[in-house]
Amino acid sequence: MNKFEFYSPTKVIFEKDAEQRVGSEIKKWGGKKVLIHYGGSSAKKSGLLDRVEASLRKENMDYVMLGGAQPNPRLSLVREGIELCRKTGVDFILGVGGGSAIDSAKAIALGVPYEGDVWEIYEGKAVPKTALPHCNIITLAATGTETSASSVITNEEGWLKKGYNCEFNRPRFTLLNPELLYTLPPYQTACGVVDIMMHTMDRYFSPGGINEMTDRIAEAVLRTTIQYGAVCMKEPENYEARSEILWAGSLSHNTLTGLGRKGDWAVHQMEHELSGKYDVAHGAGLAAIWGAWARYVYKEDVMRFARFGVNVWNLNLNYENPKETALAAIEVTTDYFCSLGMPINIPELIGRKATEEEMREMAVKCTFFGNRTIGGIKVLGEEDIYNIYVESNK
Amino acid sequence: MNKFEFYSPTKVIFEKDAEQRVGSEIKKWGGKKVLIHYGGSSAKKSGLLDRVEASLRKENMDYVMLGGAQPNPRLSLVREGIELCRKTGVDFILGVGGGSAIDSAKAIALGVPYEGDVWEIYEGKAVPKTALPHCNIITLAATGTETSASSVITNEEGWLKKGYNCEFNRPRFTLLNPELLYTLPPYQTACGVVDIMMHTMDRYFSPGGINEMTDRIAEAVLRTTIQYGAVCMKEPENYEARSEILWAGSLSHNTLTGLGRKGDWAVHQMEHELSGKYDVAHGAGLAAIWGAWARYVYKEDVMRFARFGVNVWNLNLNYENPKETALAAIEVTTDYFCSLGMPINIPELIGRKATEEEMREMAVKCTFFGNRTIGGIKVLGEEDIYNIYVESNK
Repeated sequence: MNKFEFYSPTKVIFEKDAEQRVGSEIKKWGGKKVLIHYGGSSAKKSGLLDRVEASLRKENMDYVMLGGAQPNPRLSLVREGIELCRKTGVDFILGVGGGSAIDSAKAIALGVPYEGDVWEIYEGKAVPKTALPHCNIITLAATGTETSASSVITNEEGWLKKGYNCEFNRPRFTLLNPELLYTLPPYQTACGVVDIMMHTMDRYFSPGGINEMTDRIAEAVLRTTIQYGAVCMKEPENYEARSEILWAGSLSHNTLTGLGRKGDWAVHQMEHELSGKYDVAHGAGLAAIWGAWARYVYKEDVMRFARFGVNVWNLNLNYENPKETALAAIEVTTDYFCSLGMPINIPELIGRKATEEEMREMAVKCTFFGNRTIGGIKVLGEEDIYNIYVESNK
Repeated sequence: MNKFEFYSPTKVIFEKDAEQRVGSEIKKWGGKKVLIHYGGSSAKKSGLLDRVEASLRKENMDYVMLGGAQPNPRLSLVREGIELCRKTGVDFILGVGGGSAIDSAKAIALGVPYEGDVWEIYEGKAVPKTALPHCNIITLAATGTETSASSVITNEEGWLKKGYNCEFNRPRFTLLNPELLYTLPPYQTACGVVDIMMHTMDRYFSPGGINEMTDRIAEAVLRTTIQYGAVCMKEPENYEARSEILWAGSLSHNTLTGLGRKGDWAVHQMEHELSGKYDVAHGAGLAAIWGAWARYVYKEDVMRFARFGVNVWNLNLNYENPKETALAAIEVTTDYFCSLGMPINIPELIGRKATEEEMREMAVKCTFFGNRTIGGIKVLGEEDIYNIYVESNK
């Protein structure tokens, strides 16, 4: 094991009807007046918000509500939430929904006790000295924000998207109820499965020598996700399958699957350009680019891809020609993405071929206009990134 | 996944020379005056204490020292530590050593702000309202106390041993340096390897339906421990091997390997009688009893033992007769204990056969004189426990 730090202080409460414990848990942490911050109307329609409110009322807890969190959570809504909390004396924030509602809840928690404008914190112009305590109930497996120290907010003036990491961002607790995932549409379920896999794979395929305990956990997360991801697609209300995916999703991004490794993240970074340009779902973009990336870089560490094939996909190692095992591992992975209904190249992702100009532009942007390289297993510059887009465009 | 709670807020700092960060880390957590509480003379001789002191001095941090923690940490020393802290204004406790030094440090941290006698807390007569913050540097993989909420103290008046669990017992951080394990004698290394395996196996072999993510992590911990445990025996100063075992040891007992399962713990409970009676090492006692226990209970869940054989030991599943695979898995496990130089039955453990009376007495005691059964995969009463001792005595 190389050196690492592991810190994940958020308490995880995992059970059917977990949301009904929100009142008593907030009470334990000293909360008296709660902001319930949620996303779209589905939390309302599904009865989730009713159950949350009932749980708070049962503890005689006062609360106010603010809905409307949306993907790429907006600064204006965060500011509105901060004002509301100050006016009504809120002392505990509860985020309900997907990653956006929770990121936005974290920003509100940071902003309430800060005397200036919260965006200064995201811009790096101010360091918060404290924050309101917060917790969450997630309705989508994959983002990892339910236990992480990060949040990402978008400022509509100029559409600037900025992330901020700090210890105050860590939720006191998260309530995980697999049944809340039952109503996820198949496409979102598939995107989530790919995202969970890629949070682990972008750590797994990276330099770093022997980190056997970490690699074994990464393989455990991948095998579980692959097995039960397929079940979720066929049986969206299969409790066992949803529960395995929900817990695998949380573990895949709480750093445990990459301890001692540097992480590669090239696929994530190339995908950010795709979803930025074509407004496609993150998980789908990852699936579309991964195969081309893997075939482009695997020769740098054939045995790692071969190990992935053996330990994750039960392939037999071809001792005379491990390259064959490595390539077979890449193929079986893209076949799996395919079986989930995910695109495995750019044309499948955007419904047409990307133009040369588009691919060139994305490659340039991905290097921050020549200011960085990406990747670890193979360091990728602009030409490499362009080549991978071209390979994925076939 | 069945319902579970996971909470492990202790920050883990894992690296060579981790102890040199102790001063700066305590500073981050607000400590100003530190008690360094350690065990025997080895921490002194090895230079570890010198490096700890140097790290504190570098941060201009004041400290006092108290050595002498020993296995089954004594209440009298805890009381001495509490007095010392009060007299000198200590506000942060650092435990250095094995499980005993750290458990004892936790007790001191509980006792300093408590107005009565700290033993009242362990007796359950008082509930602590606060405690001093504490951290640790461990020199032995296996106990798990470095991140846990528990501590066990022995009151010399009557030799009462009592454990106490509470959130105040959780260390702020732990510093894990694999090099500190280099000087562990082979026997202690082997005992540690068995103990790590058994912390996972006593969770793994228990009822609870499908908890695939948990089982996969348990298998990951077991495979890593088995592989690198053998290396540690041959090459005590192999950094890679010591580091894998150290991290596996911490993970094996932080609850991650049993989430959603009830845990069996019969082997641990039967072993407590053995080590109580014959004053043998806990790990050696576990190795001596496990095979007899496994052969006694495996028929209750043949497929679980078969899975263990396939996923941990790479056995081929005998589809026509999975019992054969289950029995082979038990045999390969006891063979492994043997290869570490561990006893695999009572005569090997204590150098002679146990008498009928001794075994009967241990069986009775193990049921708390008829007041409990033990185990989960198979519920064991006094006769069962006696039979298992008899099987292990052959």
